[in-house]
Amino acid sequence: MLRLATPGYLRFHQATEFEASFGGGESNVAVSLANYGIDVDFVTRLPKNDMGDAVLKTLRKYNVGTSKIIFGGERLGIYFLESGAVSRASKVIYDRAHSSISEIELDMINWDDVFKDATWFHWTGITPAISQNAADVLKIAIAKANEKGITVSTDLNYRKNLWKYGKTVQEVMPELVAGCDIVLGNEEDAEKALGIVPEGVDITGGKVEAAAYESVSKQIMKKFPRVKKVITTLRGSISASHNSWAGFLYNGIQSFVSPTYQITHIVDRVGGGDSFMGGLIYGLLTYDDDEKALNFAVAASNLKHTIKGDFNLVTVEEVEKLMGGDASGRVSR
Amino acid sequence: MLRLATPGYLRFHQATEFEASFGGGESNVAVSLANYGIDVDFVTRLPKNDMGDAVLKTLRKYNVGTSKIIFGGERLGIYFLESGAVSRASKVIYDRAHSSISEIELDMINWDDVFKDATWFHWTGITPAISQNAADVLKIAIAKANEKGITVSTDLNYRKNLWKYGKTVQEVMPELVAGCDIVLGNEEDAEKALGIVPEGVDITGGKVEAAAYESVSKQIMKKFPRVKKVITTLRGSISASHNSWAGFLYNGIQSFVSPTYQITHIVDRVGGGDSFMGGLIYGLLTYDDDEKALNFAVAASNLKHTIKGDFNLVTVEEVEKLMGGDASGRVSR
Amino acid sequence: MLRLATPGYLRFHQATEFEASFGGGESNVAVSLANYGIDVDFVTRLPKNDMGDAVLKTLRKYNVGTSKIIFGGERLGIYFLESGAVSRASKVIYDRAHSSISEIELDMINWDDVFKDATWFHWTGITPAISQNAADVLKIAIAKANEKGITVSTDLNYRKNLWKYGKTVQEVMPELVAGCDIVLGNEEDAEKALGIVPEGVDITGGKVEAAAYESVSKQIMKKFPRVKKVITTLRGSISASHNSWAGFLYNGIQSFVSPTYQITHIVDRVGGGDSFMGGLIYGLLTYDDDEKALNFAVAASNLKHTIKGDFNLVTVEEVEKLMGGDASGRVSR
Amino acid sequence: MLRLATPGYLRFHQATEFEASFGGGESNVAVSLANYGIDVDFVTRLPKNDMGDAVLKTLRKYNVGTSKIIFGGERLGIYFLESGAVSRASKVIYDRAHSSISEIELDMINWDDVFKDATWFHWTGITPAISQNAADVLKIAIAKANEKGITVSTDLNYRKNLWKYGKTVQEVMPELVAGCDIVLGNEEDAEKALGIVPEGVDITGGKVEAAAYESVSKQIMKKFPRVKKVITTLRGSISASHNSWAGFLYNGIQSFVSPTYQITHIVDRVGGGDSFMGGLIYGLLTYDDDEKALNFAVAASNLKHTIKGDFNLVTVEEVEKLMGGDASGRVSR
Amino acid sequence: MLRLATPGYLRFHQATEFEASFGGGESNVAVSLANYGIDVDFVTRLPKNDMGDAVLKTLRKYNVGTSKIIFGGERLGIYFLESGAVSRASKVIYDRAHSSISEIELDMINWDDVFKDATWFHWTGITPAISQNAADVLKIAIAKANEKGITVSTDLNYRKNLWKYGKTVQEVMPELVAGCDIVLGNEEDAEKALGIVPEGVDITGGKVEAAAYESVSKQIMKKFPRVKKVITTLRGSISASHNSWAGFLYNGIQSFVSPTYQITHIVDRVGGGDSFMGGLIYGLLTYDDDEKALNFAVAASNLKHTIKGDFNLVTVEEVEKLMGGDASGRVSR
Amino acid sequence: MLRLATPGYLRFHQATEFEASFGGGESNVAVSLANYGIDVDFVTRLPKNDMGDAVLKTLRKYNVGTSKIIFGGERLGIYFLESGAVSRASKVIYDRAHSSISEIELDMINWDDVFKDATWFHWTGITPAISQNAADVLKIAIAKANEKGITVSTDLNYRKNLWKYGKTVQEVMPELVAGCDIVLGNEEDAEKALGIVPEGVDITGGKVEAAAYESVSKQIMKKFPRVKKVITTLRGSISASHNSWAGFLYNGIQSFVSPTYQITHIVDRVGGGDSFMGGLIYGLLTYDDDEKALNFAVAASNLKHTIKGDFNLVTVEEVEKLMGGDASGRVSR
Repeated sequence: MLRLATPGYLRFHQATEFEASFGGGESNVAVSLANYGIDVDFVTRLPKNDMGDAVLKTLRKYNVGTSKIIFGGERLGIYFLESGAVSRASKVIYDRAHSSISEIELDMINWDDVFKDATWFHWTGITPAISQNAADVLKIAIAKANEKGITVSTDLNYRKNLWKYGKTVQEVMPELVAGCDIVLGNEEDAEKALGIVPEGVDITGGKVEAAAYESVSKQIMKKFPRVKKVITTLRGSISASHNSWAGFLYNGIQSFVSPTYQITHIVDRVGGGDSFMGGLIYGLLTYDDDEKALNFAVAASNLKHTIKGDFNLVTVEEVEKLMGGDASGRVSR
Repeated sequence: MLRLATPGYLRFHQATEFEASFGGGESNVAVSLANYGIDVDFVTRLPKNDMGDAVLKTLRKYNVGTSKIIFGGERLGIYFLESGAVSRASKVIYDRAHSSISEIELDMINWDDVFKDATWFHWTGITPAISQNAADVLKIAIAKANEKGITVSTDLNYRKNLWKYGKTVQEVMPELVAGCDIVLGNEEDAEKALGIVPEGVDITGGKVEAAAYESVSKQIMKKFPRVKKVITTLRGSISASHNSWAGFLYNGIQSFVSPTYQITHIVDRVGGGDSFMGGLIYGLLTYDDDEKALNFAVAASNLKHTIKGDFNLVTVEEVEKLMGGDASGRVSR
Repeated sequence: MLRLATPGYLRFHQATEFEASFGGGESNVAVSLANYGIDVDFVTRLPKNDMGDAVLKTLRKYNVGTSKIIFGGERLGIYFLESGAVSRASKVIYDRAHSSISEIELDMINWDDVFKDATWFHWTGITPAISQNAADVLKIAIAKANEKGITVSTDLNYRKNLWKYGKTVQEVMPELVAGCDIVLGNEEDAEKALGIVPEGVDITGGKVEAAAYESVSKQIMKKFPRVKKVITTLRGSISASHNSWAGFLYNGIQSFVSPTYQITHIVDRVGGGDSFMGGLIYGLLTYDDDEKALNFAVAASNLKHTIKGDFNLVTVEEVEKLMGGDASGRVSR
Repeated sequence: MLRLATPGYLRFHQATEFEASFGGGESNVAVSLANYGIDVDFVTRLPKNDMGDAVLKTLRKYNVGTSKIIFGGERLGIYFLESGAVSRASKVIYDRAHSSISEIELDMINWDDVFKDATWFHWTGITPAISQNAADVLKIAIAKANEKGITVSTDLNYRKNLWKYGKTVQEVMPELVAGCDIVLGNEEDAEKALGIVPEGVDITGGKVEAAAYESVSKQIMKKFPRVKKVITTLRGSISASHNSWAGFLYNGIQSFVSPTYQITHIVDRVGGGDSFMGGLIYGLLTYDDDEKALNFAVAASNLKHTIKGDFNLVTVEEVEKLMGGDASGRVSR
Repeated sequence: MLRLATPGYLRFHQATEFEASFGGGESNVAVSLANYGIDVDFVTRLPKNDMGDAVLKTLRKYNVGTSKIIFGGERLGIYFLESGAVSRASKVIYDRAHSSISEIELDMINWDDVFKDATWFHWTGITPAISQNAADVLKIAIAKANEKGITVSTDLNYRKNLWKYGKTVQEVMPELVAGCDIVLGNEEDAEKALGIVPEGVDITGGKVEAAAYESVSKQIMKKFPRVKKVITTLRGSISASHNSWAGFLYNGIQSFVSPTYQITHIVDRVGGGDSFMGGLIYGLLTYDDDEKALNFAVAASNLKHTIKGDFNLVTVEEVEKLMGGDASGRVSR
Repeated sequence: MLRLATPGYLRFHQATEFEASFGGGESNVAVSLANYGIDVDFVTRLPKNDMGDAVLKTLRKYNVGTSKIIFGGERLGIYFLESGAVSRASKVIYDRAHSSISEIELDMINWDDVFKDATWFHWTGITPAISQNAADVLKIAIAKANEKGITVSTDLNYRKNLWKYGKTVQEVMPELVAGCDIVLGNEEDAEKALGIVPEGVDITGGKVEAAAYESVSKQIMKKFPRVKKVITTLRGSISASHNSWAGFLYNGIQSFVSPTYQITHIVDRVGGGDSFMGGLIYGLLTYDDDEKALNFAVAASNLKHTIKGDFNLVTVEEVEKLMGGDASGRVSR
């Protein structure tokens, strides 16, 4: 997806140029994983034109495998981003209807080939929100992954401005989540996508109330027995420039609450959730410790807020330094 | 339409920002006319979001009337522009499928209201190329304009990368051109849009062969009896950086060939044809002299090639100075 | 007025380019009102050159009426802005002497025409500070507005680096303020422009002491019996990057103190007072509730601090969302 | 003087930023000379603010002496520059009325001090065009220089948009030129400033007609007996992007015509004449050969057209390489 | 190698920012080949820091294999580029002493591994110019390639500002060229690197004198019997902005002279020779026709002059369109 | 030294341009002093190319004497800067090996000439870290300064990524510090460079513990009897965007602790220590009061954090306003 952002806090109509980069839920996770040294492929459908080619070049730059991408369709999805500050929220305008991925057909991807040698499949709630076709293809992929014993993770990622093709999110998502082993979301996602209400949680105040998150996690696990871990991102929106940031993980046995970071001078918060997921998958694959995986995910995504663009361009060393408690930002020289 | 251009001759995949402006066939003509002091309105359909609002603001800035614009639909059309140089051609990627105007419905515009007090209606071959709906609405508009005795002009403007909704250009255009009083095109347009072949003209060599253009003009007038003037733009593409530029007008009685300009250091050639049309309409409305109108159109559009963006941001004084023979570019101070 | 600002916190002598935009007290208020859907005209005198024309284009873009503007004179006023940060203050260099407006003559504007159908006339303390001529023309305008029963408002706006034509502010302002219905200022303005001392208020500390503001308001009303409402902006300058922001309104009967906002990451504070006035006029015209009008003004001008340039480019919906208490800056998507 | 130029061929109203630099006739000559290793001071009056300080810093950067500059007055003069291309001329808007130099008083500069150890004094026709005061001060300076036997040179530099303080150019310039040893101008300058008509020269065609220039030179020498050399710059304006460039020198005995350069891709032609003068003074001071001095001046100013800003930032080596005939522009590596 | 170029024709000391990209002889050839779909690896030594990592990312973006690159050493080589125009030449400052590649040791690269499955090895005269170590390693590589029957090509690429480690170019190059099958150079290279004098050729005038090139080619083949084809690039430097461009190939039997292109508005000529080599290798690998390969090389490198940066970012389709004679630069839309 | 910084918080590999400026320890101090009106010369060795020339021009711009600089050697040192934010630290990559200064020879500078009329000599711990030669030359300079009774000051400035030529910092620094009158450092410097351990001080927490600093100061004075004052900068790294900042001075008799500033929105912290030193030298030369000198140094360097680039471009008036307690950042207009 092409991201077109106004520079320097300009409003859309003030801009005479847009900063151009590429991003989007699943590709953001893929880039995180590649940065951490994980072997990863991105599967999607791109238009066969210079825009699709630029996406390819970008993914290759960040060492994401591109051999499973297919080509065709009309256009690359776009989103426009206006950067907010303090009391003025950032604004996103989606222009992704009729993108190549939204018009994918059932038999275009051979999932047996794609999943050959794969051990993990990650998808987000953006994909089934785009079109019936995308949701249908995703359903097939999840079933195939389940069949092959591949770990399936999802980020619920509810976006009210998508979901325009006639189905509601709750008609589509539960069936897909049923095939997942790992579920990530925030409080709003669980409620909107799955109808599961976080109790006693003030979503703008940013306070962490572990009991409430555990209750939501347990409801999810009960409703979707395959789910083994539920993770919640905890964003406290003090303002568009200052957020608190933490995470919660429940694995059916134990709950973990990460440290809470104050992100006092946000550079770019888009992709924050994706960078959390990328960190989480890395942590779960690398450490044999759910709490450490959670803390890696939170530290990684804290750093994302200091980086321009959708991608979280940090190294394992940088994340581990922050996990270790050094948030002092002293010049490295 | 949003125009996103790579800065400084960069290729698409090299750009980390796009220069953003607004433009498109009919609006370019409208801005030209408003610049020359003509009272003009732009009629279209825009999405009700910040992109549509930015178009409105831009048109108002240039004094184009916006009160007849309607709102709705999914998205604003986009085109991406890669600026070429010398032997490397500029490249345009259209992303205008499913734009608000392409999904216009028959009864959305009340043409009686729109044409109240109007004396001239201009359209281009871009509009019927976008969608069946756009073509149908245009057909109604032309019929209504004819009924009211409003002058109708068209720029044939054939674009092979549009025309994707199932009809060919020759199935659609002739019926629309039949309602026109003034027809503008280049040699390729006449052939592709109307099936009328310019004889003995070398379209890349840029030589003006008056006899051939006159023969095409006469064929058009014979096939479409309402047509009173046929005008041909004569672009000689020496390279992407250097074009020759002239025009030809046949009014049923006489032929006129304008002087030929050498545009040796092109700044931006997109909108060249539209700036010609804007100059021509101004000339026909202002002078009582077809040759002078043609020469104004050619001089105006010569200047367009020195201006960034789709719009021809020049004054009558500047055009007339060039028409008068002063192409010396001496500093005005 | 042309605003030339150094980019990205550069000092004047570091800049190799200046960000160019247009602004200035009264035009800033006009743009605010036009943004909120109020029908508004800007009355001024501009030079008849490309700089004056660029001002016209900018005002039209933002839907401000320009038909009452007159043309002539030598030059457009300029101000240079160096953006400060933390402990380094922003710096303004005025270069507005001999501007077209400063050399306006008494009979250049026909106020009967200008005020035809008008219901409100707003002026600021900048205008009489520029030149004797400007002050004289303003005096006539206020008298005419009073005669026609048009509401007159002023922003006292004391600037010590203007007021160079030989008269002191206190020789000029009181007579003009006497014709006003609504008076806006901060503590310093009241003291410097009118000689009325706010008691017990620490102007750098930013604490709101209602009793002191009420006392100043009452003194103003006593001295200028036409005044019906006095409004005070309350800026607490914690640093160049962080201000607190609130407002106080006294209407002769009751006092209202708005909520206090912490503007922790200022993007651009120039035009803050003007955006307050724009919000206040909108509020008074729209709500039948002085407190709501005050709160709209404070919320609107809070948002101004997040927007580049002099103008407050926000919508009624955005202001009302903030008034309603949502300052969380969550991404709108 | 502050120069504010639109970037990349933008028209004034399109620009959202202006490229800022400093320049102006006499300072341009001073910088040229300092670049060539000549010990040079710039004498002017600057405002005591950050703009004046930035001028100082710029002059020091280029090794121009600043100890004779005086401070005071209201403002720094400004000129706005819109870069033209091909058939669209560049445009200059002067905003230098009421600048510090224009309001200089007779006794502000002690010319005895300034001229201590000086051997050459250069002035241009811009200075007496600004104000009566500037013209008066210049008259004193020339008289003093003559008294001390210092060589005096002038560039006639006629600008019709200056000369607004009530005197015509021909009322002022002849008296000043009478004190000069070296006079530089183009055909238009001689006619407008001195009323001496170049015969048989087509000023737009750019053809060098030596006889005509010699006739003008002889008339000047006859009218102003102190004048020892008359030099004419010969600009052929093929377009705003392509000029031919040459020079002519008559020293009372012999005429020299320089080679003619084709400057086919002009980067910035403002300051072309000043760079010619800088080269000429260097040449006359360095070589004992009028023809060589002329050729140095023409080559130096040819190079100026490839450099952004008013100053000619080239070295003696670069000029001499071009004089030597190498205009091939081969990469130096 | 990091390339730091001044933007927009600025001189070095005028620039407040440098455009940063990566390039250098052999990598430029590699990127060309990868663009044309050839499987290619770049072999070098990079520092293990963020600069080396950025080179890796850039190569991956353009699909060049990076698995054979080794890491270590102090620094990445840099070159600074000042873009010239018309009569002012571009200027290159090399800062590549002590780069990682210059301090490579004999046993750091296992050439058996590198050449596994390879069919072609290309090197340039830059590498042995950097250091004794680099020259020694190259000698080993060539020997190994010869041993394995891999085609070896070289671009003589003489740079007088390198070659500072104590040996002259003619002490080093002949031995290396002796192992080559294909030799590319211009007239100056042959003379300076090999001491072979092109007779009767004016190197600044740019005229193609086939007999002279053939004579040089034959001398090379005689001196280095392994050489099968000698190719000469023919650049005519009309100015820094306008070059003519052609090529000559002699294969021991026949001579071919390509068409001559006029590159009238050069965007960036650095990397021109490398893009020629990239095109030539592609042509020789793809077509069974030396003349066609030559023409592909010339057309490809013509296009390079229109592209910013060292790399030639064009497709086979674009090159073949130009080879086919279409240099009209008509907008592709 | 050339500083190449990524714009706007970009990571190194994201940048397509670097902001270029000049800086480095001793030159930063020199510019501070020149800004405050102190007569100062910078002594160094620069390469004889356009990069060295650009350094000269920059120093002259800021009124630093350049007549004692010598020329020669291979290259100008470079450092690359990636700007961090919040929890992501800024990153510096040094590329200064083999710079002209690092290869200085013992007899290149005539210290008798350099120190003629000098009263103060300042050096930093960067210089002896670069190379044995630089350390040796420095040793001679200090000895000569001591001999002439010139005050010698140092900033210990320990950088672990320098010190690569074979000696450890503690083998070199003590002998040099022994010749100093004034020693500046932070807690880490004293430990790493001199082996003197600050006791009971938490270097990341930023708390000022006067007793510990006094103990370190006394140890330094004991070890180096010439030292008369020891000054410690106290940086509390809350994050990369927010630091606290203060200073401590011990003069053998009394200790002074400055006020602590919260620098909540850092613009650029590189050069913070140098700006402290510049302020301190100015304070000690100007006031007869160690505490006031300390407070001037702390206020000056607070302001540095708001200014882009290495240099502290502020005036005495601005520093004294802040020292006086006005950190409100109110617009100066």
